[in-house]
Amino acid sequence: MTTPRRAPGGFPVVGIVGGGQLARMCAGPAAELGITLSVLAEAPDAAAALVVPSAPVGEHTDLEAVRRFAAACDVVTFDHEHVPQDVLAALVADGVAVHPTPEALRHAQDKLAMRARLGALGVPCPRWVRADTAADVTAFGEAVGWPVVAKTPVGGYDGKGVRVVASAGELDDWLERAAMAGTGLLLEERVPFRRELAVLLARSPSGQAAVWPVVETVQTDGICTEVLAPAPALDPDLGSRAVAAALRVAGELGVTGVLAVELFETVDADGAPAFVVNELAMRPHNSGHWSMDGAVTGQFEQHLRAVLDLPLGSPSPHAPWTVMANVLGGDYPELYPAYRHVMARDPGVKVHLYGKGVRPGRKIGHVNVSGADLADLRERAGHAADYLRGVVTE
Amino acid sequence: MTTPRRAPGGFPVVGIVGGGQLARMCAGPAAELGITLSVLAEAPDAAAALVVPSAPVGEHTDLEAVRRFAAACDVVTFDHEHVPQDVLAALVADGVAVHPTPEALRHAQDKLAMRARLGALGVPCPRWVRADTAADVTAFGEAVGWPVVAKTPVGGYDGKGVRVVASAGELDDWLERAAMAGTGLLLEERVPFRRELAVLLARSPSGQAAVWPVVETVQTDGICTEVLAPAPALDPDLGSRAVAAALRVAGELGVTGVLAVELFETVDADGAPAFVVNELAMRPHNSGHWSMDGAVTGQFEQHLRAVLDLPLGSPSPHAPWTVMANVLGGDYPELYPAYRHVMARDPGVKVHLYGKGVRPGRKIGHVNVSGADLADLRERAGHAADYLRGVVTE
Repeated sequence: MTTPRRAPGGFPVVGIVGGGQLARMCAGPAAELGITLSVLAEAPDAAAALVVPSAPVGEHTDLEAVRRFAAACDVVTFDHEHVPQDVLAALVADGVAVHPTPEALRHAQDKLAMRARLGALGVPCPRWVRADTAADVTAFGEAVGWPVVAKTPVGGYDGKGVRVVASAGELDDWLERAAMAGTGLLLEERVPFRRELAVLLARSPSGQAAVWPVVETVQTDGICTEVLAPAPALDPDLGSRAVAAALRVAGELGVTGVLAVELFETVDADGAPAFVVNELAMRPHNSGHWSMDGAVTGQFEQHLRAVLDLPLGSPSPHAPWTVMANVLGGDYPELYPAYRHVMARDPGVKVHLYGKGVRPGRKIGHVNVSGADLADLRERAGHAADYLRGVVTE
Repeated sequence: MTTPRRAPGGFPVVGIVGGGQLARMCAGPAAELGITLSVLAEAPDAAAALVVPSAPVGEHTDLEAVRRFAAACDVVTFDHEHVPQDVLAALVADGVAVHPTPEALRHAQDKLAMRARLGALGVPCPRWVRADTAADVTAFGEAVGWPVVAKTPVGGYDGKGVRVVASAGELDDWLERAAMAGTGLLLEERVPFRRELAVLLARSPSGQAAVWPVVETVQTDGICTEVLAPAPALDPDLGSRAVAAALRVAGELGVTGVLAVELFETVDADGAPAFVVNELAMRPHNSGHWSMDGAVTGQFEQHLRAVLDLPLGSPSPHAPWTVMANVLGGDYPELYPAYRHVMARDPGVKVHLYGKGVRPGRKIGHVNVSGADLADLRERAGHAADYLRGVVTE
């Protein structure tokens, strides 16, 4: 079925472009809220297509496919940030409500645009430059010190599109590709950070915003593997400043829906806690998966409420701590027996799986555990994730 | 699409006969768990059919329709208790895993069978009798005192199929119908009760059981309108005895899936707290809706885990109190504006709607609120439900 069937009573249809796990995790909240979901899916067996009745197959780059899809929806939002600006502009010209708006989304699609805008807003960022030539790279490295971090401005995710380089020569291939694409590269100083934090919030078209507690994110090989909510021993003043900066970014950029602001926690010249912004994402985000079980309003429900301009729900946590651990694909394709084991070992673990085939290193699910003892929760979440990956076997 | 699409990795398909709100509320947990749901729906716009990709339309009394449906599922369970025993027997003969089993389910389908079995188990019940004639009614009324409660043994729900009568004459029509159907009527003494309680548990085919805290249920005109979890000021010994009785019923009857045991809290001859069993339901139940937001494992997730013989999740509550209020249909069909208002007034209220058209008195949703102040939670849940019904307007 490609036409979404609307619930009676004036309830809307939310269209999500992209059928990955983020769209999939909207399905439960949408059903609870009485809202109809429609997903433009990459394939009939995309994660979200497995759980949503209306999931036409089409490419997010195919203007006519996106247009046909959007015509049946009251608002269009996204599973990822890869929908081209010309497609978005055509939707807006068609009169479709698109959230986040193309203008806001540009800052999550193009890291150079993001850096320029955050800089103009006075939001703390690493030193950065656009590099088009090897000479640009060398000049920046000599100015801020080697190694430097190079990023493709567009299309990167989960550590892809990021390199740490000690000389311009290591970027020959990327510079060549960037020159052909006319995009340039983003170079950033390598920030010595204490840890990574994230501020997650939702903002509605009316301007209402709700912020979840600041979390600590733990990355392994560029992939988020663990989230601690809230961030342990966070300096209260740092937390306030980080939240204020995230709200300012959301407001100034006109973000609608969920915004994730990823931060490095650093130490300033006086030894005081400080931060710089690492990345922005304008959609539900891995750093907010804990909220599905750990907060009154989870990020997927909140994203739906925000893009519909409904009043936002409370982001208050249920428990002193919630720990999220990502489940990465392991060596064996039959996950079900491991899943049974994890459930038997710990009745308090919330297992979330995305309906995806197992491939080594692929994000196929996550687990959440809430409670009062952080060390215990980390052990339990980590064990469940490791067991599902096949890294531990007892 | 009528063939459910299975997730990779060995994950099962759960088939639910009946497409009402109970099936609908399984959709979110199924998506989270990576389990595929398929629903045999009464109509293409049944509550669950709106949110599940595989929802063939068919009647639960149509053996061939149920059989075709079941052939694509790993286990079959139910949205309601009305599937005839001969249909269930045919499924079992086909080798289908049916949970709850027909033998257990019989006691939720036929209140006379339930009373006979509970009596044999020594579980406290009101005095009761099967009545086939006016003379039977008169004799029972004279023995236990008028008025008495008359129930149709099969097919009643939400106060339908229950009458309080002061004489045999008031039952002429029911006796006539019961005589034609050969079912008889169930007569029960009218129990003077302090309040109504419910014990909700889940039990798996392996025999594992998990019990949620005992709740108080408030009925209005025979329909559950409010649930307080846990039951306030419950005598601990009474609570233990009620849970023990419910576990005994589940074990002795071989219940699989969620079991709700509805109780009257009474006072014994010595003035001590006591109880009698009012009704049994073998499926997720209105008295457990609070658990969707108020417990680590909600009843819909737990029902799926139980019927799949997966290890059960923790039934521990998140908060000191959760209050559930049912949303009944009111006078206006456009619910969306009221829904916006309720969300704006109280960001902590969890609104659940079933995608059903509004008809006066019809259960169309419920709200949950959790926290530490029971009186405050009751006011908030009650206000939200009343506003959605149109009973209050500010």
